[in-house]
Amino acid sequence: MATIIPLEKARNAAPEKTVSALDTLVQLLDADLQAVNQMILQRMDSDVPLIGQLARHIIAAGGKRMRPLLALAATRLCGYEGARHHKLAAAVEFIHTATLLHDDVVDASLLRRGRASANALFGNQPSVLVGDFLFSRAFQLMVEDGSLDVLRILSNASAVISQGEVLQLTTQNDSATSEQAYLEVVNAKTAELFAAACRIGAVIAARPWAEEEALRTYGLNLGIAFQIVDDVLDYTAQEERLGKTIGDDFREGKMTLPVILAIHRGTEADRAFWQRVIAEQNQRDGDLAHAIDLMQRSGALRDSGERARHYAAIARDSLGLFPDSCLKTALQDVADFVVDRAF
Amino acid sequence: MATIIPLEKARNAAPEKTVSALDTLVQLLDADLQAVNQMILQRMDSDVPLIGQLARHIIAAGGKRMRPLLALAATRLCGYEGARHHKLAAAVEFIHTATLLHDDVVDASLLRRGRASANALFGNQPSVLVGDFLFSRAFQLMVEDGSLDVLRILSNASAVISQGEVLQLTTQNDSATSEQAYLEVVNAKTAELFAAACRIGAVIAARPWAEEEALRTYGLNLGIAFQIVDDVLDYTAQEERLGKTIGDDFREGKMTLPVILAIHRGTEADRAFWQRVIAEQNQRDGDLAHAIDLMQRSGALRDSGERARHYAAIARDSLGLFPDSCLKTALQDVADFVVDRAF
Repeated sequence: MATIIPLEKARNAAPEKTVSALDTLVQLLDADLQAVNQMILQRMDSDVPLIGQLARHIIAAGGKRMRPLLALAATRLCGYEGARHHKLAAAVEFIHTATLLHDDVVDASLLRRGRASANALFGNQPSVLVGDFLFSRAFQLMVEDGSLDVLRILSNASAVISQGEVLQLTTQNDSATSEQAYLEVVNAKTAELFAAACRIGAVIAARPWAEEEALRTYGLNLGIAFQIVDDVLDYTAQEERLGKTIGDDFREGKMTLPVILAIHRGTEADRAFWQRVIAEQNQRDGDLAHAIDLMQRSGALRDSGERARHYAAIARDSLGLFPDSCLKTALQDVADFVVDRAF
Repeated sequence: MATIIPLEKARNAAPEKTVSALDTLVQLLDADLQAVNQMILQRMDSDVPLIGQLARHIIAAGGKRMRPLLALAATRLCGYEGARHHKLAAAVEFIHTATLLHDDVVDASLLRRGRASANALFGNQPSVLVGDFLFSRAFQLMVEDGSLDVLRILSNASAVISQGEVLQLTTQNDSATSEQAYLEVVNAKTAELFAAACRIGAVIAARPWAEEEALRTYGLNLGIAFQIVDDVLDYTAQEERLGKTIGDDFREGKMTLPVILAIHRGTEADRAFWQRVIAEQNQRDGDLAHAIDLMQRSGALRDSGERARHYAAIARDSLGLFPDSCLKTALQDVADFVVDRAF
């Protein structure tokens, strides 16, 4: 796990506030999470050594493990006592990792979580193919588990993610992208897998439809909030944020919410600037600083956070049906954490 | 047009505030709106007298004409100077009216806009068939106009509306309905036609994709905000609100946002209450008052309004691309009006 540096710390809050909701969730699910990490390390290997090397490079490097964590939490929230969810949480992380590998190839990214990306280190070809391997391995794990319902949920999610990635390709560098189109991309490429990870908890635990729906609502809206804040952090994160330099999305011409709002709220001159840097990809020294200044003056960064807060509120409310527990509280607090985090 | 009684009046605001953003929009589009009303009256008739009688009963009775108004406003915002939009705005209103006729049959509603519903007055059979007639008439008008793009947008919207109505049937009386499922119904049954009405403005005016997307975003999000507030008003509207008694949705067991939030935030005892009145449809004197009390104490009504405000904010931002004008300001203000209205 990456070191967690909550926003509260940067704001000099009381020491007890430095334990984030995500830390709490990790602590509550510690044994489960260790079992999943074990499963991941064990199942990412193959007889072809390059596969294990490349997979280890990206998976073992860490990350927040948000999606498997959600699958574990949802399963325990539904009162499940067995161990099936370890395999399925690993499957969810493999699907996510496969999309990361392919994303980095598509975006020609050189860095991932502060280290050389797999494509930078191993080349594009093995990155694409190991992505395919992890994707197939995810389905092998699900087949071993044997639930057609889980297979249906995660195969649907995978199809939607691919659609979302293609949709995102078509909006990249298109300064006319609408907020609605952005939300549709976010729903598909991020929120759908969060929702699927949460839903499988209710499926494994054989809980009523209402709980599956509540968990779908939680995951989907948490995922939207998470992605919006990710896109905000790409312009606002501080040095202590691990693994990414700010402005990556800017340099790639990604049409994220802060950019969309800044364009909508800008003057003619501002729009000419966005047209040059995003659509024409003609960027000069000082452009990123100017972009951030425009986003701050127009309230685009603040209001992107407000938009995220709406989805987090829906996520929080959706868990109301479950009996009170530490796990439920932690999941509800994670919805706020996702909006207020600094990394 | 129904008399407009803005919320500001009830709050004893300054006299100049009694002109709502919707009034302003109506004034700006007065000539267009009269032409559309003319078109509607002229084209709802047929050689079969019962069709004209029944159609006149529901259409001539008024309503806010929100959808044709949006089609007109979007078209003018795009700088269009011709008259094609009158026919298409009438088509949009016919599609909407067809769904109202069918809704009232499905819900066995006796009242619509404060008068006997068409099904109450003429019976179910002619209501269903005249709905079909108006639906077909809408497509005749579009074919006369001749744009396959407009036909594509409105035929897609019609298919989505029907899906939304069927989806709503499946959630009615299901107290386990999630906020996400509610939003999906609202998107389909209401927001999609708002979005389509707005988009055709850009199509008729042959404007770039960015403007069509901006108008789609505006219409879709305005429609969601509009429907959420409609659902809130079903519990909160005052006597001066025209044409509906409060509690209709409650009596029908409709799972609208205030109910969903009240259930999520309720105690076990509260949930037993909702189960009895919504799922089992076993309602007694005082139940509506108790329901409203639960919604008020849990903040469900207030937060439903806050949810609506999020979509209104997206709608407002989406028009940023258009040059400043009275019409643009009126449309942006309509987004706030839709949330703050009292009727």
